[in-house]
Amino acid sequence: MYKNDLYLRALKGETLERPPVWMMRQAGRYLPEFIKIREKYDFFTRCRTPELASEITVQPIRRYGMDAAILFSDILVIPQAMNIEVEMKPNFGPWLPNPIRTQKDVDNVIVPDVTVELDYVMQAIKATKELLNNEVPLIGFAGSPWTILCYCVQGQGSKNFDKAKEFCFTQPILAHTLLQKITDTTIAYLKEKVKAGVDTVQIFDSWGGMLSPTDYQEFSWKYINQITEALKDDAPVIAFGKGCWFALEEMAKSNVSALGVDWTISPQMARKFAGNKITLQGNMDPSRLLSTPSEIKKIVTKMINDFGKDKYIVNLGHGILPNIPLDSAKAFIDAVKEYKA
Amino acid sequence: MYKNDLYLRALKGETLERPPVWMMRQAGRYLPEFIKIREKYDFFTRCRTPELASEITVQPIRRYGMDAAILFSDILVIPQAMNIEVEMKPNFGPWLPNPIRTQKDVDNVIVPDVTVELDYVMQAIKATKELLNNEVPLIGFAGSPWTILCYCVQGQGSKNFDKAKEFCFTQPILAHTLLQKITDTTIAYLKEKVKAGVDTVQIFDSWGGMLSPTDYQEFSWKYINQITEALKDDAPVIAFGKGCWFALEEMAKSNVSALGVDWTISPQMARKFAGNKITLQGNMDPSRLLSTPSEIKKIVTKMINDFGKDKYIVNLGHGILPNIPLDSAKAFIDAVKEYKA
Repeated sequence: MYKNDLYLRALKGETLERPPVWMMRQAGRYLPEFIKIREKYDFFTRCRTPELASEITVQPIRRYGMDAAILFSDILVIPQAMNIEVEMKPNFGPWLPNPIRTQKDVDNVIVPDVTVELDYVMQAIKATKELLNNEVPLIGFAGSPWTILCYCVQGQGSKNFDKAKEFCFTQPILAHTLLQKITDTTIAYLKEKVKAGVDTVQIFDSWGGMLSPTDYQEFSWKYINQITEALKDDAPVIAFGKGCWFALEEMAKSNVSALGVDWTISPQMARKFAGNKITLQGNMDPSRLLSTPSEIKKIVTKMINDFGKDKYIVNLGHGILPNIPLDSAKAFIDAVKEYKA
Repeated sequence: MYKNDLYLRALKGETLERPPVWMMRQAGRYLPEFIKIREKYDFFTRCRTPELASEITVQPIRRYGMDAAILFSDILVIPQAMNIEVEMKPNFGPWLPNPIRTQKDVDNVIVPDVTVELDYVMQAIKATKELLNNEVPLIGFAGSPWTILCYCVQGQGSKNFDKAKEFCFTQPILAHTLLQKITDTTIAYLKEKVKAGVDTVQIFDSWGGMLSPTDYQEFSWKYINQITEALKDDAPVIAFGKGCWFALEEMAKSNVSALGVDWTISPQMARKFAGNKITLQGNMDPSRLLSTPSEIKKIVTKMINDFGKDKYIVNLGHGILPNIPLDSAKAFIDAVKEYKA
């Protein structure tokens, strides 16, 4: 089906010559060809225009030849479709002028018909599949319901999402109503993405690690698991929980096909918590791409040896930073391609 | 020596009727009596005036009767004394107009005579001891060298301290020179604090958890351990590393008397990693103080049962937030005092 199917085979746990590699946020801010597009079109225009989203998606594949593409989009297209106003302010990030705080706010949130409201994403997937021409698989994604709630309630990025937590801890019933609406929308959205052509879906729980293990179960994992269960006959699901090391054991027992881990856990600990049956994905510190290319190659080789070459997908522990030199990103990818067991 | 020595006895691992309790940042922004002082005096005036610092230190003890006081001060008094300009901007936080980036910047950093440059801290300790009148012990503190470096290089607070990490990963020799200067100053400072009257010292590694386990050893733990070794005949040292669960096993083997843990680790896991010999301190999510008083009492009782009442100091998992109701802070303290095994 694909000229290069390493990524899909790693998800199935097959024995491979080398692990596949891609980078979170590989389509984006560190690439000059992306910056050129950004100069002409604002953030949501890029997301909403299939020609732009697909072009941005394949840019890193053309330049570096990663083993999988990930659709250029944003986790906040979901709340946008749910009747929540979301802006992306340059040099600031997400800005939601009317954050969710009350019963009335939650009542106003709708579970949309994603085939209408998010059709532009489906068109972008189809355009991308044409550009990719069966070279490598395409990953679709969504934010975890908890992470989406964080932005909807806080109204912007935050060091500790204190307002989001206040909302959950003082109005838990309301919080669960909102989380369920986000979950229902996300399930419909991801199923539609699979129909449109993505081969796997990744759920980004960027802020799960801000919760205690007990609160994580209640406010985050419960909903990720609902999504995973709903998608199990559609496509492999990869769950990435930043800072969620404490839940790896539980997550590994679910129907996810792989678990993404950040750089604050050693490969050995990640394998110990998650067991040896599940595929793991990660986890170099994105800031380590500021080291010299020869250091990067050493770190990557050690990382593959420590995770083991099978049931493993090489990645960063979070998104690539905007100030990474092109040669350093290349060194990261090349180190994997040159890997010899 | 003290009318209430529960805290010191918990550090020694003695069997107690109940664990001691205090709260990180207990002297501060959630207290109306503190806010009154803040209206009249700016941040560093409060730190530098022994009458103000000592009054602020004892305010929470008077109101709630915690089992230990912690000197009102700031981790950034150290870089200030080292010839680095540090401002505290209202509604913004620390601001260092000339962040450290080059060899010349590091050369200009001095290891000061702390008995001169930080004499105001020693005077604040003496004034506090008088006010405390042997009721409870007094804790002194410092930031970890890595956490201090984060501010010195980044120049302000940050979500990921990317510039601090860039400095360490691209100019490691320079980073180690700076870390050693901070370590030498911190050792002299903490020894002087003990002479002035603090009973224990806590090292706050607020940003250690931003590093990978390997980088944590190189850039943070190595220096905390130097401080611990240097202080071992002076006073008990408590190390608090936010997000540093991955290093607990190693830290527990050192000469620290206790380890502070944040709320993202369960008590059971913390005991498993740190072993059963060392006293642990923590770890309720500060945002959980937004729950109702009756919920808070349930969470605290469960937390004591899960950590075990001995070799344990009840605390939050990080500093108390500014928007915590007074009754909720009281519920937290009272739950410990009312605890029955």
